[in-house]
Amino acid sequence: MDDATLDNLAPSQAVRTQAGTEHTLANEVPLAITLNGLNHAVMMVSPYQLEAFIIGFLLTEGIILHHRDIHDLEFISQQNAIIANVTLANRCHQPWQEQRRNLAGRTGCGLCGIESLEAAIPNLPPLPASELPNIDALMGLRAQLPAWQKLNRDCGALHAAFFANMQGKIQHASEDVGRHNALDKLLGWHHRQSNPPGMMLVTSRCSIELILKMVRTYNPTLITLSAPTVLAVEQARHYQLNLIHLPYQQQPRVYAASIQV
Amino acid sequence: MDDATLDNLAPSQAVRTQAGTEHTLANEVPLAITLNGLNHAVMMVSPYQLEAFIIGFLLTEGIILHHRDIHDLEFISQQNAIIANVTLANRCHQPWQEQRRNLAGRTGCGLCGIESLEAAIPNLPPLPASELPNIDALMGLRAQLPAWQKLNRDCGALHAAFFANMQGKIQHASEDVGRHNALDKLLGWHHRQSNPPGMMLVTSRCSIELILKMVRTYNPTLITLSAPTVLAVEQARHYQLNLIHLPYQQQPRVYAASIQV
Repeated sequence: MDDATLDNLAPSQAVRTQAGTEHTLANEVPLAITLNGLNHAVMMVSPYQLEAFIIGFLLTEGIILHHRDIHDLEFISQQNAIIANVTLANRCHQPWQEQRRNLAGRTGCGLCGIESLEAAIPNLPPLPASELPNIDALMGLRAQLPAWQKLNRDCGALHAAFFANMQGKIQHASEDVGRHNALDKLLGWHHRQSNPPGMMLVTSRCSIELILKMVRTYNPTLITLSAPTVLAVEQARHYQLNLIHLPYQQQPRVYAASIQV
Repeated sequence: MDDATLDNLAPSQAVRTQAGTEHTLANEVPLAITLNGLNHAVMMVSPYQLEAFIIGFLLTEGIILHHRDIHDLEFISQQNAIIANVTLANRCHQPWQEQRRNLAGRTGCGLCGIESLEAAIPNLPPLPASELPNIDALMGLRAQLPAWQKLNRDCGALHAAFFANMQGKIQHASEDVGRHNALDKLLGWHHRQSNPPGMMLVTSRCSIELILKMVRTYNPTLITLSAPTVLAVEQARHYQLNLIHLPYQQQPRVYAASIQV
């Protein structure tokens, strides 16, 4: 499992305007995922942290329960696209086939491929109760972000997801042209680190599918820099997820607390 | 064709935090689209301008060529969801069935439901050559936006798409929790106005599927407040779309010009 072979696909590159000035822009690359030899999905991604992305995506889609369910993972560059050939454990293959959906889309939103309303909002088990993080730990988060958003600093137009420990110190960041991808990359990394305690932070607005990705990976706390939607708040409360909006230069807003005070 | 019956689903509502303060948040609602009685897609949308959304979405998906291809459109509220029952002209039904994809997803990105890499980047005819807008007309655009982004002012977390005439005066805005939806709503409105000359402006970053939506609706100029991706620039050049990035307090950057100077 290695994406070192994809060095020819950089996450950014210089592009010249009509006036002749050069700016660094983000690359977005079609990533085709095959599972046990069958086409599964195509999505547009920032081409880096792809192993973490595959793990996170398969976890948040409910296709695997553990990275060991991936028996092999091979990346192939093909023209300006990437193919990820995943060999799944047999125990995952059958359930996936049964609930197979034709799934694709830029952002791996977790709703793609759904035809009927009943399937749009899945029914998952709620998270175990968990404490809210210490509010003091949240206050220093924003100041740490610029140092971690290296791609966005050059290119603009990238989302990021961060993991912070319980003291509010950021440990890892994932950037991507898609906000769902950024969180999937982070969740895949976190899983590979054996799920250390802490919280996830996303730069993007918070809609329902980010909530579901947290629930599917048993992560207790999501912090968003932009406001959540009403449905995201309702679902966070339903699933006992801590959901906190961190507005610019204002006090954190706790929209959902796993343990009611 | 009327979405007045959906008044019970407001685009925003007040939500109370755990500390008891109240903030206005955006509603996102599952919208299920049926075409001639068959399930087509479910996507999360901001529940307003839905007639324009349906027209724009079906145009940018290549399912209809004109709003008259929609023989009837009926919206039904069902619990916290909306169903749009579309009656398509027979001339559209058969081609749609042939290329039917299981398509859904939050943002109507135009790539959802695609399984294989070959289908990810479609091959459309290029746009007819068109002049770049006058650069002076672009300089006043940003200052006009806040007055049009009413929902975002209250809720945060919403994207917007705007139509400006050739003099750079904004005439219409569409806001949505999904950036693809915002552009589809705008394109649907623009089509219903018999395609007046002008330009589209989006608050979001610009990735490939926004380019394809412009090409599919024969619109010559896209202006983005956030940077485009490399692939978006390549596709804009390929399709002869004018693509201009309007950075904050800097000169416009013309990444693609339909007519090479």
